[in-house]
Amino acid sequence: MLESIRQNKPLVHHITNYVTVNDCANITLCIGASPVMSHALEEVEEMVGHAGALVLNIGTLDPYQAKSMLLAGHAANDLDIPIIVDPVGVGATRHRTDFMSRLITELKISVIKGNPGEIGVLAGADARVRGVDSGDVKGDLPRIAQDFAIKTEITIVISGATDIVSNGSQVIVVENGHPMMGRISGTGCMATSIIASFAAVQWDMAEASSVALAAFGIAGERAAANTSGPGSFKTALFDQLSMLTPAELARDAIIREL
Amino acid sequence: MLESIRQNKPLVHHITNYVTVNDCANITLCIGASPVMSHALEEVEEMVGHAGALVLNIGTLDPYQAKSMLLAGHAANDLDIPIIVDPVGVGATRHRTDFMSRLITELKISVIKGNPGEIGVLAGADARVRGVDSGDVKGDLPRIAQDFAIKTEITIVISGATDIVSNGSQVIVVENGHPMMGRISGTGCMATSIIASFAAVQWDMAEASSVALAAFGIAGERAAANTSGPGSFKTALFDQLSMLTPAELARDAIIREL
Amino acid sequence: MLESIRQNKPLVHHITNYVTVNDCANITLCIGASPVMSHALEEVEEMVGHAGALVLNIGTLDPYQAKSMLLAGHAANDLDIPIIVDPVGVGATRHRTDFMSRLITELKISVIKGNPGEIGVLAGADARVRGVDSGDVKGDLPRIAQDFAIKTEITIVISGATDIVSNGSQVIVVENGHPMMGRISGTGCMATSIIASFAAVQWDMAEASSVALAAFGIAGERAAANTSGPGSFKTALFDQLSMLTPAELARDAIIREL
Repeated sequence: MLESIRQNKPLVHHITNYVTVNDCANITLCIGASPVMSHALEEVEEMVGHAGALVLNIGTLDPYQAKSMLLAGHAANDLDIPIIVDPVGVGATRHRTDFMSRLITELKISVIKGNPGEIGVLAGADARVRGVDSGDVKGDLPRIAQDFAIKTEITIVISGATDIVSNGSQVIVVENGHPMMGRISGTGCMATSIIASFAAVQWDMAEASSVALAAFGIAGERAAANTSGPGSFKTALFDQLSMLTPAELARDAIIREL
Repeated sequence: MLESIRQNKPLVHHITNYVTVNDCANITLCIGASPVMSHALEEVEEMVGHAGALVLNIGTLDPYQAKSMLLAGHAANDLDIPIIVDPVGVGATRHRTDFMSRLITELKISVIKGNPGEIGVLAGADARVRGVDSGDVKGDLPRIAQDFAIKTEITIVISGATDIVSNGSQVIVVENGHPMMGRISGTGCMATSIIASFAAVQWDMAEASSVALAAFGIAGERAAANTSGPGSFKTALFDQLSMLTPAELARDAIIREL
Repeated sequence: MLESIRQNKPLVHHITNYVTVNDCANITLCIGASPVMSHALEEVEEMVGHAGALVLNIGTLDPYQAKSMLLAGHAANDLDIPIIVDPVGVGATRHRTDFMSRLITELKISVIKGNPGEIGVLAGADARVRGVDSGDVKGDLPRIAQDFAIKTEITIVISGATDIVSNGSQVIVVENGHPMMGRISGTGCMATSIIASFAAVQWDMAEASSVALAAFGIAGERAAANTSGPGSFKTALFDQLSMLTPAELARDAIIREL
């Protein structure tokens, strides 16, 4: 899959927040895909037509962007382009929660990736989200992911020290990664961009998501090995993901099915 | 205070410019607080309710953001959440100057932090601001800060080689920092985010501001010691602030009252 | 010219995309000029009055920004301030192509800088643009640049492994640079900011553009010499441009007229 991304350089259309958008662009380039960011109502439908995947990230959602996401999402559905959603901060405000309900109802989404609190809120579990950090959720995470995936027919990804991926029938855990990844802004958003890059070349969304998270996690492990703080860690994260080879990914990925 | 930030991880709600927003998010994480950026009229009041402090930064102010700042500001006032304002580029255009007047009139602001030109313009001194760089002001800076603080009952911070902080009764100077901090974009905005992080755990705004500036200045000194250009300096700045301990901060801070 | 930028620190007013805006601000500081970003309709005309050059970059163009660009552009024309346009992704959507036509028709533009696909689309050559990457164009690039420059009376810059600059009468090539520059997001936008910084101190737009591209290319060559991935390369790129002296620029620039 990594080789296929680097050969085909699929376009990944992002409608995303203005906080981490540059990180998303650069990480998409590092994995080998081609990022494009565009939110104007006049062009999102046309732009998504060039894309291999569409990222919708609600980190700094405003009304204009909301319209733009729905327009692009419908166009992506018409063209069978996978939609990967990052429900940043859902649960922190009614605005975000309501919009996510609308997205899930109106669009056919391929993957939703959030932290435990965010997915907990969406799944109706006993969860609490304050800002855009991880929040809390009570309950068995793999079960929450699987039940929510069955109910929605969407591949659900819960990111964390152990990442959980479920398409309803399978529950997969990915054990790669490093705590430093939680100490910089944007790793959640970047993970979503990488999942979208893999989703553009692989129809099995659970497999695309798992391998994407393993690749990013391995890059995080390697970046942490040689750095002492979040600034240099972030620089090394881009370097390491860019240098990761398909053979190294196959060798170092820690992916297992529950 | 630094320990208290790192234990309590207060949420710092930012309505800020799109140029340095990622730097603000990362520096907030480095000091130990938790950043959230949100500007939608539908959610700012609810979001600020989770926050320990609100940052209003007018660096790329547009009409929508202006409405959003007023709405969030009134909610913060109702909840007694401190508001920290960065009047980026005030004086360069009538639009910025008028909006700052409105903010100061309509809201109860805890801290305004600007460069000498910006504070000079606000205080009605003989000042000139061209863009978002430091501008010029004639007159005695500590006096300008103190008089303006007395008049407005706001803690006034003038950043520079020597930072000046006044709450009207006290005038404090902070001598930490390094000229390299003026050679990258965003250090002014980042200083504001750090002040807000301290303001979330300390009711005395002059003390919160002084210690925040000392912490950032020490990180700047250390970052400059091992780097040769602005790119690597910026990376090191995040590393150094993140690694700064409360003991080191107490030992290396150069803060004195005039 | 580089010395003149560093002495006069001309203000470069940007109306640009939110993906690479921070990179544009920092690279403008590295070359020695002073960046300001501002798009509010209430202030762009006043802000551009302080500026030595205006950058219009359509990377994430939306209707508000489009209005803002036209307003600022007319003000710049009235004041004889050079306008440097980066037609990011033109050809990928009708929205971008139509807006670029309007800019070229309504404003007197000094320089347009794009990749081969973008300039090919604008020039009516046999070109294809998918996202914001380089796209394809058939035909002789120096000829396309020259013909388009003659037709529009605008200095045309085509960036690439070899950069091409034409004002209609001259065709200049710049051979500095490194392939790593294509592996990070934002180098195209940064090149535009650097051209604008030179255009603020040099009336001959072909010369300003050529020397700007040589300076950036030399920084890229030096940055690549000591780094192993795109993250550390980007950090080094800022360092190297900042440390570049006028004497080194004169010595290492590879500029020749065809």
